[in-house]
Amino acid sequence: MFLHRQELQFKSTPEKPDAVYARKLQEVLGGQYGEITVAMQYMFQGWNMHTPGKYRDLVFGIASEEIGHVEMLATMIAQLLEKAPLGITSDAVQDDPTVAAVIGGTDVQHAIVAGAGARPVDSNGNPWQGSFITASGNLLADFQANANAEMQGRLQVARLYHMTDDPGIRDLLSFLLARDTMHQNMWLAAAEELKEEGAEKLPVPSNFPQGKEATEFSYQYLNFSDGAQAGEGRWAKGPSPDGNGEFTYHEGPTSSVPMPPPTHPDSRFYGTTELPNTMEKAAGLAQDKLNKE
Amino acid sequence: MFLHRQELQFKSTPEKPDAVYARKLQEVLGGQYGEITVAMQYMFQGWNMHTPGKYRDLVFGIASEEIGHVEMLATMIAQLLEKAPLGITSDAVQDDPTVAAVIGGTDVQHAIVAGAGARPVDSNGNPWQGSFITASGNLLADFQANANAEMQGRLQVARLYHMTDDPGIRDLLSFLLARDTMHQNMWLAAAEELKEEGAEKLPVPSNFPQGKEATEFSYQYLNFSDGAQAGEGRWAKGPSPDGNGEFTYHEGPTSSVPMPPPTHPDSRFYGTTELPNTMEKAAGLAQDKLNKE
Amino acid sequence: MFLHRQELQFKSTPEKPDAVYARKLQEVLGGQYGEITVAMQYMFQGWNMHTPGKYRDLVFGIASEEIGHVEMLATMIAQLLEKAPLGITSDAVQDDPTVAAVIGGTDVQHAIVAGAGARPVDSNGNPWQGSFITASGNLLADFQANANAEMQGRLQVARLYHMTDDPGIRDLLSFLLARDTMHQNMWLAAAEELKEEGAEKLPVPSNFPQGKEATEFSYQYLNFSDGAQAGEGRWAKGPSPDGNGEFTYHEGPTSSVPMPPPTHPDSRFYGTTELPNTMEKAAGLAQDKLNKE
Amino acid sequence: MFLHRQELQFKSTPEKPDAVYARKLQEVLGGQYGEITVAMQYMFQGWNMHTPGKYRDLVFGIASEEIGHVEMLATMIAQLLEKAPLGITSDAVQDDPTVAAVIGGTDVQHAIVAGAGARPVDSNGNPWQGSFITASGNLLADFQANANAEMQGRLQVARLYHMTDDPGIRDLLSFLLARDTMHQNMWLAAAEELKEEGAEKLPVPSNFPQGKEATEFSYQYLNFSDGAQAGEGRWAKGPSPDGNGEFTYHEGPTSSVPMPPPTHPDSRFYGTTELPNTMEKAAGLAQDKLNKE
Amino acid sequence: MFLHRQELQFKSTPEKPDAVYARKLQEVLGGQYGEITVAMQYMFQGWNMHTPGKYRDLVFGIASEEIGHVEMLATMIAQLLEKAPLGITSDAVQDDPTVAAVIGGTDVQHAIVAGAGARPVDSNGNPWQGSFITASGNLLADFQANANAEMQGRLQVARLYHMTDDPGIRDLLSFLLARDTMHQNMWLAAAEELKEEGAEKLPVPSNFPQGKEATEFSYQYLNFSDGAQAGEGRWAKGPSPDGNGEFTYHEGPTSSVPMPPPTHPDSRFYGTTELPNTMEKAAGLAQDKLNKE
Amino acid sequence: MFLHRQELQFKSTPEKPDAVYARKLQEVLGGQYGEITVAMQYMFQGWNMHTPGKYRDLVFGIASEEIGHVEMLATMIAQLLEKAPLGITSDAVQDDPTVAAVIGGTDVQHAIVAGAGARPVDSNGNPWQGSFITASGNLLADFQANANAEMQGRLQVARLYHMTDDPGIRDLLSFLLARDTMHQNMWLAAAEELKEEGAEKLPVPSNFPQGKEATEFSYQYLNFSDGAQAGEGRWAKGPSPDGNGEFTYHEGPTSSVPMPPPTHPDSRFYGTTELPNTMEKAAGLAQDKLNKE
Repeated sequence: MFLHRQELQFKSTPEKPDAVYARKLQEVLGGQYGEITVAMQYMFQGWNMHTPGKYRDLVFGIASEEIGHVEMLATMIAQLLEKAPLGITSDAVQDDPTVAAVIGGTDVQHAIVAGAGARPVDSNGNPWQGSFITASGNLLADFQANANAEMQGRLQVARLYHMTDDPGIRDLLSFLLARDTMHQNMWLAAAEELKEEGAEKLPVPSNFPQGKEATEFSYQYLNFSDGAQAGEGRWAKGPSPDGNGEFTYHEGPTSSVPMPPPTHPDSRFYGTTELPNTMEKAAGLAQDKLNKE
Repeated sequence: MFLHRQELQFKSTPEKPDAVYARKLQEVLGGQYGEITVAMQYMFQGWNMHTPGKYRDLVFGIASEEIGHVEMLATMIAQLLEKAPLGITSDAVQDDPTVAAVIGGTDVQHAIVAGAGARPVDSNGNPWQGSFITASGNLLADFQANANAEMQGRLQVARLYHMTDDPGIRDLLSFLLARDTMHQNMWLAAAEELKEEGAEKLPVPSNFPQGKEATEFSYQYLNFSDGAQAGEGRWAKGPSPDGNGEFTYHEGPTSSVPMPPPTHPDSRFYGTTELPNTMEKAAGLAQDKLNKE
Repeated sequence: MFLHRQELQFKSTPEKPDAVYARKLQEVLGGQYGEITVAMQYMFQGWNMHTPGKYRDLVFGIASEEIGHVEMLATMIAQLLEKAPLGITSDAVQDDPTVAAVIGGTDVQHAIVAGAGARPVDSNGNPWQGSFITASGNLLADFQANANAEMQGRLQVARLYHMTDDPGIRDLLSFLLARDTMHQNMWLAAAEELKEEGAEKLPVPSNFPQGKEATEFSYQYLNFSDGAQAGEGRWAKGPSPDGNGEFTYHEGPTSSVPMPPPTHPDSRFYGTTELPNTMEKAAGLAQDKLNKE
Repeated sequence: MFLHRQELQFKSTPEKPDAVYARKLQEVLGGQYGEITVAMQYMFQGWNMHTPGKYRDLVFGIASEEIGHVEMLATMIAQLLEKAPLGITSDAVQDDPTVAAVIGGTDVQHAIVAGAGARPVDSNGNPWQGSFITASGNLLADFQANANAEMQGRLQVARLYHMTDDPGIRDLLSFLLARDTMHQNMWLAAAEELKEEGAEKLPVPSNFPQGKEATEFSYQYLNFSDGAQAGEGRWAKGPSPDGNGEFTYHEGPTSSVPMPPPTHPDSRFYGTTELPNTMEKAAGLAQDKLNKE
Repeated sequence: MFLHRQELQFKSTPEKPDAVYARKLQEVLGGQYGEITVAMQYMFQGWNMHTPGKYRDLVFGIASEEIGHVEMLATMIAQLLEKAPLGITSDAVQDDPTVAAVIGGTDVQHAIVAGAGARPVDSNGNPWQGSFITASGNLLADFQANANAEMQGRLQVARLYHMTDDPGIRDLLSFLLARDTMHQNMWLAAAEELKEEGAEKLPVPSNFPQGKEATEFSYQYLNFSDGAQAGEGRWAKGPSPDGNGEFTYHEGPTSSVPMPPPTHPDSRFYGTTELPNTMEKAAGLAQDKLNKE
Repeated sequence: MFLHRQELQFKSTPEKPDAVYARKLQEVLGGQYGEITVAMQYMFQGWNMHTPGKYRDLVFGIASEEIGHVEMLATMIAQLLEKAPLGITSDAVQDDPTVAAVIGGTDVQHAIVAGAGARPVDSNGNPWQGSFITASGNLLADFQANANAEMQGRLQVARLYHMTDDPGIRDLLSFLLARDTMHQNMWLAAAEELKEEGAEKLPVPSNFPQGKEATEFSYQYLNFSDGAQAGEGRWAKGPSPDGNGEFTYHEGPTSSVPMPPPTHPDSRFYGTTELPNTMEKAAGLAQDKLNKE
């Protein structure tokens, strides 16, 4: 269960309203890698986890922190929208390029739908969706997904940092950057610990018997483009990170088979088949009729 | 540009049709972590890349291989659907539980929409969508995203392996498992190489001046749940993986501020404000009238 | 069946074109609470209704009116787009902030996709979708949903009223506001009538035997936040609106149980389980093999 | 900020696993009116609220309880999936209709994607999305939306109650039914209080000057269908619930205007115009050329 | 404006309920090419049309008929669901494979959400969406889109015809098939008439000056696959259907240019650039600092 | 399988960056009728095709060309974004209307998410989705769908041509226009060839026995609107294009039946039924109890 305190983890107040920036900030609230995503991702990982103890405590702890980050961003966005202009006339625009920018740069649903409030959407107004999250039950895979989310998240916050010079917004972003630094490190450390403890290893999933895969292809770099330097990286020679193989390099595929012949489903799907086929189709229909009707 | 050969990289023919399994296989064709996702993800990373050479050659090469995997899966699905039943009557069901299973377990759009063909959707029939991919321009972040995709992908294929005993399908899956093993290793090796060459390092993005983040929070584990063991992991003590800090552990937040006061946007948004407010609202409307109309 | 007349219920002609406003008006055509939503919602309620007579006549009558409102808005939007600029050069922008505003403030798909026409989307260009509607078969619930839709709808139109000073647009909006006033009142009256006639009552659904719910929790206000004034409202003391209980107030939950232990699904899902588990997993896999393969 | 306790508000353990029911239960977790919806809806209403005090305390308190309900349902679903079958062969189906039912009736992504875990989706596997929520800043409208959500929610839980006879599941549902009873009553009481205190009244939004709407249409029932009994309800005669008017009944519209003439946007949109138009088009293009290129 | 009559165009009553078939029928109600799509497509074409007269009369007339078809399908689906089973226990399934089939084959939201009613979704439960329609303002293009919709629609109805032997359902389908026959023919005739009258011709849009396209590529068949027979069709030799050119056949592209060099956006996007780049990045950041902060 | 060459089919380099135009160009990359759509549509048609030979060679060949067009557009967009402004301050806007335009007119996710790169979305930022494509297995229907896609595609490119005066962009568009001219012609020629060879004919699907449709309605134009000129077109008189009938014209429907009575599903769905119904419901519940619990 969750308990709410009417406090924030960090100051979240802009120096002045900025409806255009409010729209941009929606990305890290409700976008693919926004705070709703990480909060929900870690919660579902906790609810689906098959082991008690430190890993489950970890995901529940961070999940709860992240809902608080959603709150900090929503609070900030509402304040940035406080002076959002409502009634625009063409006269106003003619006088003032700033107003012109605001007309185009804002999320108009902030005004029309939310009455100058935050929304669970990204910076283009696409609604947040459940398919943004990852919670597979395999912790090595999921912690990798978490590190991924925190990397993309910190990258977006860093970009947003340069899109404003408001000290209040920058303060909040400096806090989010720090927490993303922590969370990147944390998930990488947790993934390492899983491997050290022998709980999981590479490749994911490690308990699938690797002998059942087509092992002759497991460490081949196959180059399907004509880039001349693809063979110069570490992925094309030397031992593989999972410790189970040795990389080799190949131009194009090392195997090939002809495509199987076209399929011939029931004629009542009315697909087009080989030519000449009118007679065959008629015959098939007659046969179908005898068999099935 | 892309050139097509009417060959497959590996045999992709089931021993017998199985419309229920065809639906399940859609997950790794058109799902969040299916082959369309990785093909498109690597292509967009290539088109958005800011450096020529081995890394771009790498993403283009693998992207092209992955479109071929989309093709192998689509071809397999079409064959699995070859005998998909079309006309079901209640009599048929009463005689045969297998038919009963097929009615419920198939993707009915395979029949109604595609006429016994594959579709760009996941195993629940949700269409593939562009928001599944990641291509940020930062290679360390993106290679982490790629490793993530290949881990979730191999995990799903491993599960699917146990959901059939058809030797033809298992053959194809054994090939995909091997390639996922390669691709997991490859992206991890590429991420390592970026760090060794000094192109990128942790935390992502490494060129953002870390001094601008709120560094007092950068390596603190803050436990917002009451799990007693959250402090026992490597994320709560010792050096951080980025080499820049030392983890510490804390129960709950180490900072807190009151929530800012509610906002007061333009009264013509018709939001509900403090009580008693009828008088104030009337006054405000009168004032607005003077000012703006 | 539906018959169309090439007339409108009210004048729908702007004084002058305004491509930026055309985009905003899309919200009440194709948004969550736009006219397509109410038209489709009332139609599906009619088709799914389990009783003939006045209630079904009501929903069919209003549904038909609402398709006409969709038409009025689409017609208005097409006219607002009549002079939408097509060819923009940077020279034009340098001369004129109004042009600058138009570039950013318009829905570019109005031009590129619809050739200066209306579209079934909201003001951010998100397509209308079937999941916006509510039609459950329970009339008290559905009439409440209808009143909700008309309230949000009128609120949005009221906001839009202040975003233009074009007399032609304001005329149309004044008509829509009036009809929303009617429709709010109408659905509330219909809900009351259902209760007076004894067809339905609170809580919805009224025929579910309330004795089967955990009645000790049915009228408790449980405060999961630390807001000091949550107990001061009518929801925390006195009789409940359904007439079946008496509200009480409580800080936090009045009951609590430990979370159930983690689940242990089939090991072939490759979830991470308790540690140390390498041996157990191996044993489990061997056992699975004996049992199932 | 939010703090998590590893406890549940009520017992959430099934007597036995049931993967088919797990899928159905997803509706009230991640559907249009599921617990994620109400949790997010109340949170955003709190963050966007323009008045401190009891109403904000109310939405924050209930929002937090609702995240706990998401947790209870996710926990229940994971347990229902504990024995989800993974490896299905046709032999198994031939022996057992129950297995046949399970094949079709389960959410296959529960197995393939989540490894026997809950997901943020509805009972058809559609992902939860941000456009399910309502948070407008107008409290009378929003509390109506909240009552609506709790009514549809309780209706769905009541239906789900009859779709199982597992005592453990029914226990949890009896608790959710009770809380939905409370929440329906609570939002209706809060809406009443807003009106009693004079903060808001009908029609929503009450501060929009009703004189600006086309008042001759504000209380007319206009019947656009041919249902003979539409005039027999309370919505067709007598005083309106907002106290501002008197209902009247009319067959069809009371006003009508011709549709405006078709629009003529820039010829470079290549829309088809009046006939014969080849000459005109050529002339228009020539003119455009002179003017603009 | 639209007026509703409580009549149907054709009998729409099944002989017996069939909840599994109800789900399948949703495809032609709310799918990509279902009746909602054509109704909305034709309406928006009418509202966006730039010419009065027979073409606009045509799209309005058919649009109205199609809403009536939505109604016929929704009515049929509600009747098919009339005996939808609600309370399923495992005992029931063990006795009866038919029940097993029903569990899996139904749309569970028909029961849980709509209480045995139709919904605006396709046969996999995906909601209908505005992006299914086409209304560009160019009539030749749009009539082609309409013919396309009617062809896919009739194909789906034909497949559905074989998925039932209920005489009542087949009656309704025979009517829809006939109307789809009419509508296919009608749109093709209308497209021909546009060409005969000289209003439009091929290629669409015909008024774009073809001299501005790269005419050397306008009638070349370029084969990017290795299929040996691609040159045997009419598209590879002889006059083109638009009458403006002569088809020619080529293996692969007839032109090629190197890819442009990678881009170098502002360093504060933190993209990865050429190696070694650490020094350059540091210099760039310093420079940015001087220039912009 | 697909092989990639690091070349483009045509020059794709703008004269100067233009972030606003980059957003517009997304429509023909990732919109409903963008290049991703046609590439995927033709690929899936190839994989689902039931006949080898020239038609399959055709769709594979063009599919591969289209992926190359996706690449050309993505490459162009990345270059247009090369100088995308990142750090905007209000001072900058006050000085320069061009900057103001750019703020509003750009896709902010180009900057925040992709770091100045292309994305798989349309010009409003909606992600590309699998439901944009058509691949039914019936070639006459699908080639019609292909011609439709190429017509809408060329129309959009023609509009985009006038939205820029950059010679580099116009060069690329002139190439795409030419290829769209070819592809329109090609699909129409292929559709003709199918008919000439007797493989398919009108109406689609031609092998469905037309005698099973309600033939009295197959060639009737039924006018459900009051447009006086609907009967003046070729669709209202004369022979039908399929050669099987003669068009006739009718005002409104030629048949009509009453709506079937409302349905009465299981009372435990808690739908509202006829009034007075309290007694009946109680009785029904009692009966249900006896029967089922």
